Amino acid sequence: MDFARRAWDHSFPMDPIVRTLLDTDFYKFLMGQMIWKRHLDVEAGFALSNRTKTVRLAELIDPGELREQLDHVRSLTFRANELVWLRGQTFYGQEGMFTPDYIEFLRTLRLPDYSLGADPETGQIVFETHGRWAETTFWEIYVLSVVNELRNRAVLKTMGRSQLDILFARAKVKLYAKLERLAELEDLNLTEFGTRRRHSFLWQEHCVLTAQEVLGSAFTGTSNAYLAMKHGLEARGTNAHELPMALAALCPDDDEGCLRASQYRVLEQWQESYHGGLLVFLSDTFGTTQFLRDAPDWVAGWTGARPDSKPPIDAGEELIAFWQARGADPTEKLIIFSDGMDVSIPGFRANGSDIVDVHRHFHDRVRVGIGWGTMLTNDFIGCHPADADALKPISLVCKLVSANSRPAVKLSDNASKATGPAAEIERYRRVFGSEGVTRSETRV
Amino acid sequence: MDFARRAWDHSFPMDPIVRTLLDTDFYKFLMGQMIWKRHLDVEAGFALSNRTKTVRLAELIDPGELREQLDHVRSLTFRANELVWLRGQTFYGQEGMFTPDYIEFLRTLRLPDYSLGADPETGQIVFETHGRWAETTFWEIYVLSVVNELRNRAVLKTMGRSQLDILFARAKVKLYAKLERLAELEDLNLTEFGTRRRHSFLWQEHCVLTAQEVLGSAFTGTSNAYLAMKHGLEARGTNAHELPMALAALCPDDDEGCLRASQYRVLEQWQESYHGGLLVFLSDTFGTTQFLRDAPDWVAGWTGARPDSKPPIDAGEELIAFWQARGADPTEKLIIFSDGMDVSIPGFRANGSDIVDVHRHFHDRVRVGIGWGTMLTNDFIGCHPADADALKPISLVCKLVSANSRPAVKLSDNASKATGPAAEIERYRRVFGSEGVTRSETRV
Repeated sequence: MDFARRAWDHSFPMDPIVRTLLDTDFYKFLMGQMIWKRHLDVEAGFALSNRTKTVRLAELIDPGELREQLDHVRSLTFRANELVWLRGQTFYGQEGMFTPDYIEFLRTLRLPDYSLGADPETGQIVFETHGRWAETTFWEIYVLSVVNELRNRAVLKTMGRSQLDILFARAKVKLYAKLERLAELEDLNLTEFGTRRRHSFLWQEHCVLTAQEVLGSAFTGTSNAYLAMKHGLEARGTNAHELPMALAALCPDDDEGCLRASQYRVLEQWQESYHGGLLVFLSDTFGTTQFLRDAPDWVAGWTGARPDSKPPIDAGEELIAFWQARGADPTEKLIIFSDGMDVSIPGFRANGSDIVDVHRHFHDRVRVGIGWGTMLTNDFIGCHPADADALKPISLVCKLVSANSRPAVKLSDNASKATGPAAEIERYRRVFGSEGVTRSETRV
Repeated sequence: MDFARRAWDHSFPMDPIVRTLLDTDFYKFLMGQMIWKRHLDVEAGFALSNRTKTVRLAELIDPGELREQLDHVRSLTFRANELVWLRGQTFYGQEGMFTPDYIEFLRTLRLPDYSLGADPETGQIVFETHGRWAETTFWEIYVLSVVNELRNRAVLKTMGRSQLDILFARAKVKLYAKLERLAELEDLNLTEFGTRRRHSFLWQEHCVLTAQEVLGSAFTGTSNAYLAMKHGLEARGTNAHELPMALAALCPDDDEGCLRASQYRVLEQWQESYHGGLLVFLSDTFGTTQFLRDAPDWVAGWTGARPDSKPPIDAGEELIAFWQARGADPTEKLIIFSDGMDVSIPGFRANGSDIVDVHRHFHDRVRVGIGWGTMLTNDFIGCHPADADALKPISLVCKLVSANSRPAVKLSDNASKATGPAAEIERYRRVFGSEGVTRSETRV
């Protein structure tokens, strides 16, 4: 009996989910700096949305505990060593990624207020935050990891001791089997992207360390800034839909040209901010097909792309055709596949697109990068001894809903991932069209 | 990381102090059976009292947590295997200690209601319970171990991780040093008596198992019924002041003969209940000197005595003189010393009477038994790195205050241990006298 450990463990009034503000996706800092420098006057609202309607989160999660966890996040500030680490981030050891004034902004950052409720009809949690975009943007990852972990804890609390024992044993076995299968791939370049929907912080850490052990140099880093700092890994990240969504929302209602151009204006601002580093575009905010068709030629000069809502093989082929049409060599381009990736193993079909298939399909034709999220850090499917789907991941997002009080819209390549008021979605569809857009269930 | 263990540990809404109703002193069952058989109609009140006035318990302990722990005790019932164990208790493998009808009573026992408050002036917790004596009697040990442990937890919560580490390391070192010193004694017969004032259940268990390892056969058991069952030790116990106190309280006000006789009437009932086994008398309820002086000769035929409030060497000498005067051979008699016993070790004077001194003084003259309580299971004096006395044990008792609504009194050999209303104490003193009574600080 380790009495000191037990007494210490019991000395905490709560078990915090977010341990530090650095426990977030690295891309929040990359986007955050651009927002802070170029859009400091923009007010932005974010809202939680659970696309897995069958899991009635507000009935599973205690509202008092949820508030306690979110308030804990609001009590946090960046630690000195974390700011030092951020300041030390460079492009290939040369230029700093973050400027001193942005680091100073982070030094005093506290998360803004939020409103919390429950919709009794849908059984879903209602979370919203409104305020300075440069601040509200940070809520995304914290609220997602908090709500996901509270949901998982609620399930774990119903389980007996040997059920828990077999649950984690099976999850470890699954994880290891997947990683062993991936270890066979040639030139694998895999990054952990699973902070937002992880089972828990400690489990994510276990997954990251196991991946590093099994995959060696094929495991190229993590999107989690805190884990990157703690374990000396490379912090990796790109950018997200909130950027083009906000820029589009800020366009006057009658200015279709502004709307169409917003998706490229974001990229202009990005490449000005990061001077040629980190040039991976996200193409699907208002539909990939129209994005590529109308893209200025300089877009084809970017390093690569991150498709996020088309079946990955279709998306990759479309990108390759785009680069070829624009006279670029696809074998020099990077595609980061990060939308619902998984690995099938004996006994378990992939819950998403199989990384092995995608990698084999594109290997030698483009530089393939895999951003492996939910099904790396939260695969407990079939692990609960009594209910295989008890801990099946849910498709929870925290999306930009407004910019300067104007509604924000995402169309996506998958119509079921569209967000925004119906009338606005219609208006955007009139402008951007629906070419290449399909509809399929979102898994994770 | 043992994820299953962590999830399991976090699945409890509270950390219960009393884990089962069997987690009590064995003497509660011995006394309880006699009360149930002979005094089922008696209503008895018990109240908590902290003789260490400097420790303001109500200001240290959260009243919500206290109520939660006490209500948890009320939710417990004896488990089937515990009743089987009780039923299997015998006198030397022959006759059963507990009759089937008393076991049946225990099967449905739930602890009676209680009232809880705080005295803002003294800063002390006010706990009282009133009801059928056969039921209220059980509250004594549970409320003592709950309040003691909550006080300890309150202190632990203020400590840092390395402070806790050194605290428990030092306490283990102290415990071991004491046991090693005791291991040198010839014919030691030592029983653990520390449930009521233990640091915690787990620490008591650690002390018991360590004592067994270091002392071997000289460690003759524990008063804790649950630990005895769990670890295959002998459960040991005698009887307490509540028996003569209640019988005395039930005497009519004007019947001094009844009052004086009550202390012997208890013993008659006890020896009828236990047929010659367990014949160890407690002599100090109304003063040992008058008790021995006026005792019928058959009292000298009992196996032994348990002095509880005189300095042990004085008490032992008085008992030896008593037996000699009554023609009994003291070397055949057992004296169980259990009042404030401790062991001095280099760097630490005993916080109480030194077992080594007492044992050496009486060894070969009587059969010496040691009932080691508080300073075995709760010695953290000098272990806290910043405040040597932060966890110094307090003298907390839960005493009988009334029987059938008549006030109960204890005089004791130490006037500072007297309990009851002042006027009643005076009346009892007129009847019993004050011969041999002194006054000294009560430590534990």
